[in-house]
Amino acid sequence: MTIGFIGLGIMGKPMAANLMKAGYRLVVHDVARDRLREALANGAELGTSPADVAARSELMITMLPNSPHVREVALGAHGIVEGARRGAILIDMSSIAPATSREVAAVLAAKGVEMLDAPVSGGEPKAVDGTLAIMVGGKPEVFDQVKDLLLKMGSSAVLCGGIGSGNVTKLANQIIVALNIAAMSEALVLATKVGVKPETVFNAIKGGLAGSTVLNAKAPMVLDGNFRPGFRIELHIKDLQNAIDTAREAGVPIPLTSQVMEMMQALKQDGKAGQDHSGLVQFYEKLAGVQARR
Amino acid sequence: MTIGFIGLGIMGKPMAANLMKAGYRLVVHDVARDRLREALANGAELGTSPADVAARSELMITMLPNSPHVREVALGAHGIVEGARRGAILIDMSSIAPATSREVAAVLAAKGVEMLDAPVSGGEPKAVDGTLAIMVGGKPEVFDQVKDLLLKMGSSAVLCGGIGSGNVTKLANQIIVALNIAAMSEALVLATKVGVKPETVFNAIKGGLAGSTVLNAKAPMVLDGNFRPGFRIELHIKDLQNAIDTAREAGVPIPLTSQVMEMMQALKQDGKAGQDHSGLVQFYEKLAGVQARR
Repeated sequence: MTIGFIGLGIMGKPMAANLMKAGYRLVVHDVARDRLREALANGAELGTSPADVAARSELMITMLPNSPHVREVALGAHGIVEGARRGAILIDMSSIAPATSREVAAVLAAKGVEMLDAPVSGGEPKAVDGTLAIMVGGKPEVFDQVKDLLLKMGSSAVLCGGIGSGNVTKLANQIIVALNIAAMSEALVLATKVGVKPETVFNAIKGGLAGSTVLNAKAPMVLDGNFRPGFRIELHIKDLQNAIDTAREAGVPIPLTSQVMEMMQALKQDGKAGQDHSGLVQFYEKLAGVQARR
Repeated sequence: MTIGFIGLGIMGKPMAANLMKAGYRLVVHDVARDRLREALANGAELGTSPADVAARSELMITMLPNSPHVREVALGAHGIVEGARRGAILIDMSSIAPATSREVAAVLAAKGVEMLDAPVSGGEPKAVDGTLAIMVGGKPEVFDQVKDLLLKMGSSAVLCGGIGSGNVTKLANQIIVALNIAAMSEALVLATKVGVKPETVFNAIKGGLAGSTVLNAKAPMVLDGNFRPGFRIELHIKDLQNAIDTAREAGVPIPLTSQVMEMMQALKQDGKAGQDHSGLVQFYEKLAGVQARR
């Protein structure tokens, strides 16, 4: 089977590499030609446009920054919709707004093209290792067709519901991660300001009900003042904006998410958008006039 | 050694019972005489007032609802300060404002009485089992004297810093727990409203960075609509108020904690103060017009 792969950025490149290692033939495309060098050197063929990629593939994978890029690549001029064969499948693995997944899927369906939304979590290291967690939305029979393929890139692939459900699940994940980082920040900065060592607090509470993967992964970064990404604040801002848009459209208040969004925007204004999202603690530290360090 | 034990409520009663099982002689006191029945039947002696308890003990333990009760029992009429011997130790195991711990300790110190604040986490089941997590503030040499005794009631006892530090650590714990519950609620209600099953979301994300002890312990309660405590909303309100007071005094903004406090107050107005704190999800459910159930 020939797979079209569009978007070979930080995530897409290692994901495409894992598919090639697994023996799939790839037709690749990216707006930045230099991102294709490695894939082409390893035997991938060049697709000159998304339409060209689609015309030469039974199955397409997109891994793009956000909703507008997916809409453009799928539905824009020389887009997938112009080249795709009837019966082909698009797996969009980008993290985007669920509403865009549904919108693109509806246009493709009218051309006889199936679509799954399949955003991932785990970041670059797990993309390289092929151990991403993949959250999928779409028809069960389409999911069944591609599950083995997805497991060349991830260690799990879970069907969460109809089209858009993968991105809804991803947004739920990102909401919890952002708020758990804020929770840790609020608690550690308060303790520090009233004279208790944040490392002591961390060690005292991590085994109880306050324990979390965020606390275990991110408190040590806070204590060391090490905000090298990891997952960048600017990417979390993108996800929270998609969550806020989705919530507004659905009529669900998400007041804490909105407030953490404001904190991340403040950090962006401070030039910290490229830091790991654990750098959120600095919003509190600046206001409190203390640092929650060892 | 004779231990004075004041406050035999839901937590104090099993804690006192564990000390008696360990062979300590107890002098007990509570404003509600019926709470003493079991301890007296098991051989504890009756103290007629906190001062009387203090006069007959080398070491006193208090387990009371909140700061005003500790202040009254320690410093009020017929309080501990009136009866305590020089060289005695008060271990206040109540969850109260750190400022009150420091205030009471200062008055007692002038009478030659040492004090530790030693709030616990784990709730009634762990109080019964003697497996509480005990967070301690005070002098290291005083902590060393009583650590073995504390371990008759808990599975861990950690010195977090000077007097008040146990309660600061407990407040940090309670902030994180409250916000992690709110994070889970915001995410699950949003997903439900946009048509993804909350149980699917839970299962898809619990193994990743969004995973937490709160998610594992409380998401199943939400999915079942089972809000039997556990830890009651009214008690979490008490802890958050102490956190907010402490933060205000220290000059630290804790905006998310304040917002969750408002949510819990809204639930209290709805008659839900006696429910488990996971019942917080109902704040979101009411506004969104959906329930995040199986």
